[in-house]
Amino acid sequence: MSDTHTTTDEQIAAARDAALRLANTDETTRDAALAAMADALREHTNDILVANETDVERAETLLEQGEYSAALVDRLRLDAAKVDDIAAMVESVAALEDPLGRTVAARELDDGLELYEVTVPIGVVAAVFESRPDALVQIAALALKSGNAVILKGGSEASESNRALYEQLREAAAAAGIPEGWIQLIEAHEDVDRVLERDDAVDLVMPRGSSEFVSYIQDATGIPVLGHTEGVCHVYVDADADLAMAADVAYDAKVQYPAVCNAVETLLVNDAVATDLLPGLVDRYETAGVTVRGDDRTRAVVDVDPATEADWDTEYGDLELSIRVVDDVYEAIAHVNRHGSKHTESILTEDPETAETFMTGVDAASVFHNASTRFADGHRYGLGAEVGISTGKIHARGPVGLEGLTTTKYYLEGDGHRVATYSGEDADSYTHRELSTTWTPGRRSSE
Amino acid sequence: MSDTHTTTDEQIAAARDAALRLANTDETTRDAALAAMADALREHTNDILVANETDVERAETLLEQGEYSAALVDRLRLDAAKVDDIAAMVESVAALEDPLGRTVAARELDDGLELYEVTVPIGVVAAVFESRPDALVQIAALALKSGNAVILKGGSEASESNRALYEQLREAAAAAGIPEGWIQLIEAHEDVDRVLERDDAVDLVMPRGSSEFVSYIQDATGIPVLGHTEGVCHVYVDADADLAMAADVAYDAKVQYPAVCNAVETLLVNDAVATDLLPGLVDRYETAGVTVRGDDRTRAVVDVDPATEADWDTEYGDLELSIRVVDDVYEAIAHVNRHGSKHTESILTEDPETAETFMTGVDAASVFHNASTRFADGHRYGLGAEVGISTGKIHARGPVGLEGLTTTKYYLEGDGHRVATYSGEDADSYTHRELSTTWTPGRRSSE
Repeated sequence: MSDTHTTTDEQIAAARDAALRLANTDETTRDAALAAMADALREHTNDILVANETDVERAETLLEQGEYSAALVDRLRLDAAKVDDIAAMVESVAALEDPLGRTVAARELDDGLELYEVTVPIGVVAAVFESRPDALVQIAALALKSGNAVILKGGSEASESNRALYEQLREAAAAAGIPEGWIQLIEAHEDVDRVLERDDAVDLVMPRGSSEFVSYIQDATGIPVLGHTEGVCHVYVDADADLAMAADVAYDAKVQYPAVCNAVETLLVNDAVATDLLPGLVDRYETAGVTVRGDDRTRAVVDVDPATEADWDTEYGDLELSIRVVDDVYEAIAHVNRHGSKHTESILTEDPETAETFMTGVDAASVFHNASTRFADGHRYGLGAEVGISTGKIHARGPVGLEGLTTTKYYLEGDGHRVATYSGEDADSYTHRELSTTWTPGRRSSE
Repeated sequence: MSDTHTTTDEQIAAARDAALRLANTDETTRDAALAAMADALREHTNDILVANETDVERAETLLEQGEYSAALVDRLRLDAAKVDDIAAMVESVAALEDPLGRTVAARELDDGLELYEVTVPIGVVAAVFESRPDALVQIAALALKSGNAVILKGGSEASESNRALYEQLREAAAAAGIPEGWIQLIEAHEDVDRVLERDDAVDLVMPRGSSEFVSYIQDATGIPVLGHTEGVCHVYVDADADLAMAADVAYDAKVQYPAVCNAVETLLVNDAVATDLLPGLVDRYETAGVTVRGDDRTRAVVDVDPATEADWDTEYGDLELSIRVVDDVYEAIAHVNRHGSKHTESILTEDPETAETFMTGVDAASVFHNASTRFADGHRYGLGAEVGISTGKIHARGPVGLEGLTTTKYYLEGDGHRVATYSGEDADSYTHRELSTTWTPGRRSSE
């Protein structure tokens, strides 16, 4: 145990050390390293697939013993085309705009005293994720693009694949001039626990997995955590909805991929359209294998099992749905704010005022009008890739891309300025004039 | 105890309820309420001073008994001019630009599918602060301007003053149409403990006080905490410094107000200028009553007590200073990154390249060139006012003004868009085109 701590502490120290140097690498170096990483993945596809085969074989044995699901084995399995997709994803991250060194505020405080707020990396981030080996590469690519050192802990079911991918990324980045130590792979649960204890050295933890898993991480650490605990998402079909559109969107939101956090769990239907909408829609759901439950008013229209109070708070993550009939948009908003998990909510209506009432009244990271909740995703949002989706309100909210991996730093350029001259009689006063210049070292506005 | 919980829980519930409605008040209403609050403070100056007198008398008794410091009693005492200053501060917050409803990103995802990222309030914030009664008004004003409900806990030494100020703010805001419940005053330590437990309902905690106090809050809650734990700030005088400027700035950074977090604690001096700089500067420090300690190389130049290893990690918060002689800017950077608290650091040099090396190499919220560390402050930075200074890297860093009290929300406007049409053969593809429009409900780019 104390040996393990020593090793993990050394890895953390190496990451911190690398982070300080990585913060000052230029965009060209970081992008060239990403390109080299993509090349290395393609070049060593065979090695990666051999390692992956070991994981898949072990998983198939556990599948036969009933310990793993077929879906898990599917997610685990790589082939040459998938490795090529992963390499292409790394290249697309390289192609994103540099998130570092952007001047987000520039202000003259007084003659010759200029303040610049500039984006910088966070420092050392740790990611803990399950199954899919492509997660390791995606998180590493986003971390490097944003100048962060990263500590990676994947699922044990993917350990051989993760090790093979990690080695390729590490070697390629080092050869391209990225400070060694910026990427660290840890494998044991005790090592994760040690990382979670090191709030003096690790700046952010990003867990990806079940809500129980994210809650466990949140409770176990004093380090800020970026993640989503639950996705209890709603679709509300208003009295003024286009019912054909509403049925299509409500169907898509549940059936297209029920296992994910942005799938709908509860359908809210305005009383005025329940009779027209529900029989046909419930039929479609049931044909697709969805188990539908409803409140009393729903069951007066369609023959489904009763929903209990607990249903309104449940993330099924499966082909299950509860339906509730409501009087108006206000009852819908009240239901969502009481039972929702602040993830993604959608209203179907042709009335822009009702849409506004719902969108501004609902407290959630994403609120949609006439669109499926399934669009809540970093790739679909155009963020390039995502490190996760945050249901917290602090730092980053909703799908988190590169921006969530940066913070800012204030640079003040003076000319011997002292605060003593700003108090007492004949005190200097601040000009507080916004500047349109960007920070470059030693800048003066007069230059 | 359980009675207290009930009451505190009711206050938290009232704040949450008000927060949902406050988020949708317009700028005019919030600014009018702030103006009414300023008027009420001026109009009821006498009531406020009577309440304050009770606090001051009690504090003076405790001062005589040696339990309070004279400085604490000074900070506590209000007079008519100070109440007028506080009212003027509320008006200056009202005059700041509205932090809400700003479209920070707008992107077409596909034809008729438009994503807007818009600033919104965080929700319910809790502030725990010590002594100065003006802190209550400043935090309440910033919270209201940014649309947040706020739970306030002031120091017990200011309880009568805080209650009087709170009542004026609450009544004036309610009369101006702000949803009741948005401002809550709690007074007992158990009530703070209860607030810290309620991570389901309170979105952010902002402690202001000693580092021990902030650490206590951080350890006691799962709610995100915005604050600074320590201010171990450095001034580095480089070989190429203008020594007269360096001496003035280093003096200002320590002597102008030693009790605050942005005062310097350790002076780093390049070996090349130690003999020229130190004798005169140490003389000035000692004349101002500063106790100076130094490492061996410092003591070879000036006659001061030895500094121990512990000195490099100590926030004196008083007229004390440790001095270390270093070989070059790299040794200065290494010292700062090892011993600093990531608050504020300053380099004195006429060489822009050395300045760049220091500013980009040092990991801190604020890094200055040729300016006193004492400028690290929301008012001086032109943020209008501050809720605190953050040494964390997540969400907000450095002096935190209105922006730190907001988060963003994604609004997606569609036309029945479903994700199913974006996969498989003949899949739709995303356009991901940046838009220059801002979000208004029901907007379509074609309109």
